[in-house]
Amino acid sequence: MKAYHLPDLMSDLPPRVSVLRLGHRRERDKRLTSHLGLTARALGANEIILAGDHDESALETWNSVTERFGGDFDCRHESSPLSFLRQFSKDAGDGKPGIIIHLTMYGENWRKMVSEIRRDRPIVIVVGGTKVPREVFNLADYNISIGNQPHSEVSALGIFLQSMIGEVAENHFSGGEIRIVPSEFGKRVLNLEDE
Amino acid sequence: MKAYHLPDLMSDLPPRVSVLRLGHRRERDKRLTSHLGLTARALGANEIILAGDHDESALETWNSVTERFGGDFDCRHESSPLSFLRQFSKDAGDGKPGIIIHLTMYGENWRKMVSEIRRDRPIVIVVGGTKVPREVFNLADYNISIGNQPHSEVSALGIFLQSMIGEVAENHFSGGEIRIVPSEFGKRVLNLEDE
Repeated sequence: MKAYHLPDLMSDLPPRVSVLRLGHRRERDKRLTSHLGLTARALGANEIILAGDHDESALETWNSVTERFGGDFDCRHESSPLSFLRQFSKDAGDGKPGIIIHLTMYGENWRKMVSEIRRDRPIVIVVGGTKVPREVFNLADYNISIGNQPHSEVSALGIFLQSMIGEVAENHFSGGEIRIVPSEFGKRVLNLEDE
Repeated sequence: MKAYHLPDLMSDLPPRVSVLRLGHRRERDKRLTSHLGLTARALGANEIILAGDHDESALETWNSVTERFGGDFDCRHESSPLSFLRQFSKDAGDGKPGIIIHLTMYGENWRKMVSEIRRDRPIVIVVGGTKVPREVFNLADYNISIGNQPHSEVSALGIFLQSMIGEVAENHFSGGEIRIVPSEFGKRVLNLEDE
């Protein structure tokens, strides 16, 4: 059954999913931003774009995890996130509009929205820092909340990606040096380089 | 329909869900631990127990959010987390064993496990710091992974709680001073104190 089911699920995957992290502050946000990028990668996004402070160490962490654990995952710094979003809303690189999803505790309930979200075009998921400019709310095709209680951009992104593409994306980490084997009792790690 | 459906869902809620955060380091983990506790609260846990460094500021953050946004959420420091777990595995406070769930990237796949997990007894969800003692794997009734790629204890906890109890727990934040109203376009905040 799985073999027949998977191709259908695959066609549900958007062409490309990027996460845009606004307002990164090198000292204060170091580990949260690092976890945010790893969450993006583990739950099936193709890329994280870092805005705010330029922080080489964040990019290094993400690249190093991809090298060790496989898959394709891009990361880069963006010094003009608003210009980038304005452009993306008109042209995702092929002359046609991309889809912008803004995760915010002020947004519409994700359970209500997740099945309605278009996924036929490249997607940018915007994840705020402290103060998100009003223009981001306006540029977004969807302002989405994971509950309307304060929690974390990391859990919000994880839950949203999981519900949108997680199941399909989960097993697509080819290559890499090591692989964790799921186990009820403990640590089973395959070192692929030894084989 | 909703009115009929909700009581059934409610009976699916475990008697009590606590999150035990191991190995907190006051400086390095400050904001991650803060986000972890807020995630526990927002996604329906009843309590977070902080082990590692005693950190009053984390407890203050959680209490302050509960005061402003409502609901019941407890937090405390635990100086002997392993003793606590040993005891809980035998006696959850009423002379009968509690259920221990350990979230770890080495664990069994959560999609496979989540429907099998017992929820008829109080639950402690253990979330690691860097080095989790072997004994935690052994004490746990379930070692569970949210994918076997490295990401974040914050997103792992969020996804797990969401899948286990999130839907039922989401609307149980009574009281508090402010409430966010879900909105497609932006910020709608009710100040309950004005009313």
